[in-house]
Amino acid sequence: MNIAIINGPNLNLLGTREPEVYGQVSFEVFLDELKQRFPNVVLSYFQSNEEGQLVSKIQELGTSGCMGIVINAAAYSHTSVALADALKAVEIPAVEVHISNIFSREAFRHHSYLSPVCKGVIAGLGLESYSLALQYLLRGK
Amino acid sequence: MNIAIINGPNLNLLGTREPEVYGQVSFEVFLDELKQRFPNVVLSYFQSNEEGQLVSKIQELGTSGCMGIVINAAAYSHTSVALADALKAVEIPAVEVHISNIFSREAFRHHSYLSPVCKGVIAGLGLESYSLALQYLLRGK
Amino acid sequence: MNIAIINGPNLNLLGTREPEVYGQVSFEVFLDELKQRFPNVVLSYFQSNEEGQLVSKIQELGTSGCMGIVINAAAYSHTSVALADALKAVEIPAVEVHISNIFSREAFRHHSYLSPVCKGVIAGLGLESYSLALQYLLRGK
Amino acid sequence: MNIAIINGPNLNLLGTREPEVYGQVSFEVFLDELKQRFPNVVLSYFQSNEEGQLVSKIQELGTSGCMGIVINAAAYSHTSVALADALKAVEIPAVEVHISNIFSREAFRHHSYLSPVCKGVIAGLGLESYSLALQYLLRGK
Amino acid sequence: MNIAIINGPNLNLLGTREPEVYGQVSFEVFLDELKQRFPNVVLSYFQSNEEGQLVSKIQELGTSGCMGIVINAAAYSHTSVALADALKAVEIPAVEVHISNIFSREAFRHHSYLSPVCKGVIAGLGLESYSLALQYLLRGK
Amino acid sequence: MNIAIINGPNLNLLGTREPEVYGQVSFEVFLDELKQRFPNVVLSYFQSNEEGQLVSKIQELGTSGCMGIVINAAAYSHTSVALADALKAVEIPAVEVHISNIFSREAFRHHSYLSPVCKGVIAGLGLESYSLALQYLLRGK
Amino acid sequence: MNIAIINGPNLNLLGTREPEVYGQVSFEVFLDELKQRFPNVVLSYFQSNEEGQLVSKIQELGTSGCMGIVINAAAYSHTSVALADALKAVEIPAVEVHISNIFSREAFRHHSYLSPVCKGVIAGLGLESYSLALQYLLRGK
Amino acid sequence: MNIAIINGPNLNLLGTREPEVYGQVSFEVFLDELKQRFPNVVLSYFQSNEEGQLVSKIQELGTSGCMGIVINAAAYSHTSVALADALKAVEIPAVEVHISNIFSREAFRHHSYLSPVCKGVIAGLGLESYSLALQYLLRGK
Amino acid sequence: MNIAIINGPNLNLLGTREPEVYGQVSFEVFLDELKQRFPNVVLSYFQSNEEGQLVSKIQELGTSGCMGIVINAAAYSHTSVALADALKAVEIPAVEVHISNIFSREAFRHHSYLSPVCKGVIAGLGLESYSLALQYLLRGK
Amino acid sequence: MNIAIINGPNLNLLGTREPEVYGQVSFEVFLDELKQRFPNVVLSYFQSNEEGQLVSKIQELGTSGCMGIVINAAAYSHTSVALADALKAVEIPAVEVHISNIFSREAFRHHSYLSPVCKGVIAGLGLESYSLALQYLLRGK
Amino acid sequence: MNIAIINGPNLNLLGTREPEVYGQVSFEVFLDELKQRFPNVVLSYFQSNEEGQLVSKIQELGTSGCMGIVINAAAYSHTSVALADALKAVEIPAVEVHISNIFSREAFRHHSYLSPVCKGVIAGLGLESYSLALQYLLRGK
Amino acid sequence: MNIAIINGPNLNLLGTREPEVYGQVSFEVFLDELKQRFPNVVLSYFQSNEEGQLVSKIQELGTSGCMGIVINAAAYSHTSVALADALKAVEIPAVEVHISNIFSREAFRHHSYLSPVCKGVIAGLGLESYSLALQYLLRGK
Repeated sequence: MNIAIINGPNLNLLGTREPEVYGQVSFEVFLDELKQRFPNVVLSYFQSNEEGQLVSKIQELGTSGCMGIVINAAAYSHTSVALADALKAVEIPAVEVHISNIFSREAFRHHSYLSPVCKGVIAGLGLESYSLALQYLLRGK
Repeated sequence: MNIAIINGPNLNLLGTREPEVYGQVSFEVFLDELKQRFPNVVLSYFQSNEEGQLVSKIQELGTSGCMGIVINAAAYSHTSVALADALKAVEIPAVEVHISNIFSREAFRHHSYLSPVCKGVIAGLGLESYSLALQYLLRGK
Repeated sequence: MNIAIINGPNLNLLGTREPEVYGQVSFEVFLDELKQRFPNVVLSYFQSNEEGQLVSKIQELGTSGCMGIVINAAAYSHTSVALADALKAVEIPAVEVHISNIFSREAFRHHSYLSPVCKGVIAGLGLESYSLALQYLLRGK
Repeated sequence: MNIAIINGPNLNLLGTREPEVYGQVSFEVFLDELKQRFPNVVLSYFQSNEEGQLVSKIQELGTSGCMGIVINAAAYSHTSVALADALKAVEIPAVEVHISNIFSREAFRHHSYLSPVCKGVIAGLGLESYSLALQYLLRGK
Repeated sequence: MNIAIINGPNLNLLGTREPEVYGQVSFEVFLDELKQRFPNVVLSYFQSNEEGQLVSKIQELGTSGCMGIVINAAAYSHTSVALADALKAVEIPAVEVHISNIFSREAFRHHSYLSPVCKGVIAGLGLESYSLALQYLLRGK
Repeated sequence: MNIAIINGPNLNLLGTREPEVYGQVSFEVFLDELKQRFPNVVLSYFQSNEEGQLVSKIQELGTSGCMGIVINAAAYSHTSVALADALKAVEIPAVEVHISNIFSREAFRHHSYLSPVCKGVIAGLGLESYSLALQYLLRGK
Repeated sequence: MNIAIINGPNLNLLGTREPEVYGQVSFEVFLDELKQRFPNVVLSYFQSNEEGQLVSKIQELGTSGCMGIVINAAAYSHTSVALADALKAVEIPAVEVHISNIFSREAFRHHSYLSPVCKGVIAGLGLESYSLALQYLLRGK
Repeated sequence: MNIAIINGPNLNLLGTREPEVYGQVSFEVFLDELKQRFPNVVLSYFQSNEEGQLVSKIQELGTSGCMGIVINAAAYSHTSVALADALKAVEIPAVEVHISNIFSREAFRHHSYLSPVCKGVIAGLGLESYSLALQYLLRGK
Repeated sequence: MNIAIINGPNLNLLGTREPEVYGQVSFEVFLDELKQRFPNVVLSYFQSNEEGQLVSKIQELGTSGCMGIVINAAAYSHTSVALADALKAVEIPAVEVHISNIFSREAFRHHSYLSPVCKGVIAGLGLESYSLALQYLLRGK
Repeated sequence: MNIAIINGPNLNLLGTREPEVYGQVSFEVFLDELKQRFPNVVLSYFQSNEEGQLVSKIQELGTSGCMGIVINAAAYSHTSVALADALKAVEIPAVEVHISNIFSREAFRHHSYLSPVCKGVIAGLGLESYSLALQYLLRGK
Repeated sequence: MNIAIINGPNLNLLGTREPEVYGQVSFEVFLDELKQRFPNVVLSYFQSNEEGQLVSKIQELGTSGCMGIVINAAAYSHTSVALADALKAVEIPAVEVHISNIFSREAFRHHSYLSPVCKGVIAGLGLESYSLALQYLLRGK
Repeated sequence: MNIAIINGPNLNLLGTREPEVYGQVSFEVFLDELKQRFPNVVLSYFQSNEEGQLVSKIQELGTSGCMGIVINAAAYSHTSVALADALKAVEIPAVEVHISNIFSREAFRHHSYLSPVCKGVIAGLGLESYSLALQYLLRGK
């Protein structure tokens, strides 16, 4: 089973950026752990700081046999209609995740253009948010 | 480990109410399944249509050794400051869950008073939302 | 034919509360009159000051053969998503009524969560609002 | 007893316009039925697509012995201060009616300038809305 | 002279809940002190987490010879039209009190439905808020 | 010197409509008085309840040698872009007048589409508003 | 093929009104040119300053075999729910046109009630807007 | 007859400040002209850049036999609740004037706290605004 | 113990200004009564109609040994950031008071810039508001 | 004559993405058709999912002899100030096009930053929108 | 070269007021330093807590040969239309400065009436803000 | 000392784009001048039209020994949460600059996501804005 994890801007800094908000583990380290937890999944990973590249990557997944997307678009969640359009255009089930609780931060982080076009949202549960999203997609529902 | 699941108004109708939105399984049936999936957890369950009883139940949990709360306050999520105050008053980690994707429904369902006082939110992943929340609480983070 | 009349908070004070707004007749007296006007209807009546009890009563009606609901949720009309959810969950045709003209009072009384889930609304026609709603439900449309 | 029914723009199309919203009966046919139901009432009827003619008609009624107005101003309900001013200027009791449930349609239909200057509002009960309004006015309250 | 003190949701936790905001004294202890300070007043006390029970209690006071109400509706201050309606329906002079300064907390706590129907408001003066309110009511103005 | 006075909807009722707001003198009587006060002015007068006829009249004035317009568009002041466009299209100096003080009435009367396209506004000074506007136009500024 | 062009208020002034915004050609002259460009189309033309007459004309077209409508409702675009209702009631494909770029003018001109009920909108392309709309309707799509 | 003219901040610059908006005549020169036009009026004049001094001056007028106030509060019109309170406290009839058409300038100039507490408003008619206001007050209505 | 009472604009008119809102007693008379009630307090009093003088007075108090401030900034409560800044700059505990219930008056009186920087607020309890505030400050909490 | 067509994010999916909204023809196929319809135009085409590349392309056109731009910025229409700035910086006449009727879709699609800096807008006329825009630019107006 | 520095309310407290926000240096000390850094400039300085005195001072500068203004209106930046009007009336180039970063403080500090009428704004750079503003004015651009 | 200047979209057009707003000097020419004025600073420069590349560049600076950032994000200031997040993530002091006075332009330019995460803002002082920002950073505060 192929599943893609997509991370948006500044998430390449995970582990060093505002560790009191985002924790001290880099995403690469966590990714390895995820792969071990889910040995039967082919996990692909893509991070970009560029909105357009994230859009293009989602489009690619649409024709690559990908069966689920876990997406943390970070800042672009709150400003990108283009990403939402891309997710809607490909018809792969997607789960939106956020490491921090976006609902207890600045008001402009409370709204995400992606939420209505995803299956659902997991926010505030740290890196576990990714793991739970994966698990949901694997249950095939 | 003691964990409480709290369901708000109309969730006692699960399985019969708008099944195209909420699915066809009653919560009691699902609860049995959950107990089997998590044999080492003492799961308590409380549902009420009354805001005040939900407040009182959360207060009780505060002095009962409960170590985690999974709460789906349903309609009260969007209107109840009192529930949010109760969750903040007891200091048990809580995860807010929603069966449907509240962000693709009416605008008044996009905001929840509970979100900022919970650890995080899981929305739109059907009954699995409860299971994933439980799993998060069990990891002790 | 079974029809239920449901009254929300403070309507038990009818006849004494702000009589210049709500009139001087108590609801009990008016109910007797209604029963006489509609001798072929089995009229049940429920009043509560508690939002949750109103929710529970509506749920009960859903499995009791009730064929129509006349509901004056009073203050809860403007604040209760839970009541609207309950009305939507049971599939009994309902008519929302208000004794006073809510559109010529405070701005927060102009919006009702119940209106979109009811067949229609009758507001401002005094106690006759109930009678007209009953009549509509009896015509079976 | 003289009572006037006033219909606003596009209601002359009743029966052909969006029948899934407004039904398939023309108003003329329904008017005949109304006259039969209320044999003791002198029912006058006026429909216009022009706001100003509706204003003028209401003014006329003010000096013609008319004892009640049933008004469905349709689209002008939401945009016409002039009609509201006219209704306020003549002192005939009026009931605002709407065939469809304006509260479950587009947001701009939720507000009516006429509501605060009428006795009350009946909305969403189909053509019966007119009949119920008439009945209310006849009770002389 | 009979005066009633009414406390809303979560105020039963006083002394343990967020003591940095609400202080460390339980209301029961403080109530005893109040009774000593005002030996000539018959002080009744009612706390509930349920909006509807608070509404019912206020209604009861309306026919029990109560001459003044000191009310801290806590979270319900910001969401309950029903409580405001109840206070307006009984005609006992009431003073709204808040332990914390609601105007320096979250925006949704700045507005209270009760304020316009009470004589006045005392907010932010800790438990003394109750004492000052009592004193005002005793002066009979 | 030719000057036109234009009155909008319901102003034909002046003297009978809400006399506590608009006074007890009909406009015809007042017009005679105005003509006596300004013997050297050719005063034309037009009243209509129809927005479109008011638009057409203003257009006509544009090619009739009219040198000034005193306009009280009444309710249409607050809703008519078309009247504002017409006034802007003809290039006759215009003064907007209102008999009552629109700024101490309902909020929707505080804004007029006509104000920005007129020379100025005179509001709240009763029928004298017309006389003062005339005087201003006569001074040729 | 029958196609109707409908112009709203003040467009009869075209060529003289604010020529820097609307150009110097009268609509009659342009209409002749249009007829020459589209010799196979039966072009009917209607202009009115009265909202209600525009509503009535659209209704008429609904039963006259008209196959397409090009409508420039001018000021009424921004204020008329009645015109939008009429367009929706008849089922002739319509294209909304504007001579000037309404999106670079006053904010109240940015919104049109007609846009959602038309096939599409052409704005800002001068009188060519009409010609392009015609062309679109002729392609039968 | 005693009438006071009160000018707010920056109006002492009249004649030099933005002459394209406010004209080139200083207020002193205009005041002399006014005195000549109204020989039977005792005109007092007060200008201040300080909100508080304007408040105090209005209070003084309240006990000085002043029979009318012409007030151009300039910038303070839009921000001063204190001036409005002062005008309401003394019971002298007042007319608010503005030299420029405040309704065709920045949005924050469209609202004045003074308008609802004055008899009426004259705006946009240049210095004549003062003269017309005086005339109104002299007619004793 | 030194405590200062500070009154804002128009409060020097107390007793004569809108007595139905503010009562008929002048503040001077009431001040004498206060001094008698609190013989052990050195009460200083300052009233000004000028925002800046109130700011300066608060600054002075900051270095004069004053131990508490009772402030009724009247109209400036709703518009003055400068007064709020001054209160925040000096670190004397302050209580905001209002004679009338500002929450049942015009919407612009519901918000006060001072509230968040004061200990608390007492509103609507007439002149007693001052006395209760004094009492609070004296308890040293 | 050189004219450039610029397409924004996700338009490379045309023909496969939500065909019920955007149709089933790919843009490449349509482009060939366009070239045949306009044999005398040198049509250049650029599509990108990246906002910055679209900005750069527009800048390039500014110095390349391009005489007209047809731009469908898709999702970026609603979020990109940078694209609007680029269009304003180069001085090539541009027409904004949209395949679907953006005014009958989600509210956030009703506003475009590009509209005020383009000559005009064509929306909702399917792929014909491009053809009509081209035609307009070719007429040299 | 004459340049004026103008400071608004509470800035006389600099060095003692909220030192964590505004620093510990009094403005007088800093002014001496400024004079040493800019020996060829005639620096005048004015501070007032009164809005009107600041207005008057700016007016005076207009006729005194002043060639540049550095203004920190503090709290009045956010509420004073009068100061903005005064700056616009005199035609001296002005730079608005703020010691703290007003954009990371309360929302009501994010807007300044002065910004649009000044050359530019320097905010958040501590006392250096003044020095940089001076330097800008001296370059004569 | 290493300091980076970062310019956002369209600033590569400086000197040719809207010269009446942005001046006629290209940034390259100005950069040379800056280097001469600050001979002891190692100035790096980066411009991009792509939001993501700007984000990546800021991240790079975070680990390159850069000691200060001068950033003019142009259009992205108003729409990019991602850039603000990047600036917050690296902990280099930054100053936001704008060549034009953004506060006197379109409303959407008045808000910048970057302002709250920078030390401060310099806007409207032309290219000097950069120079003053550099100077501030060099003082090491």
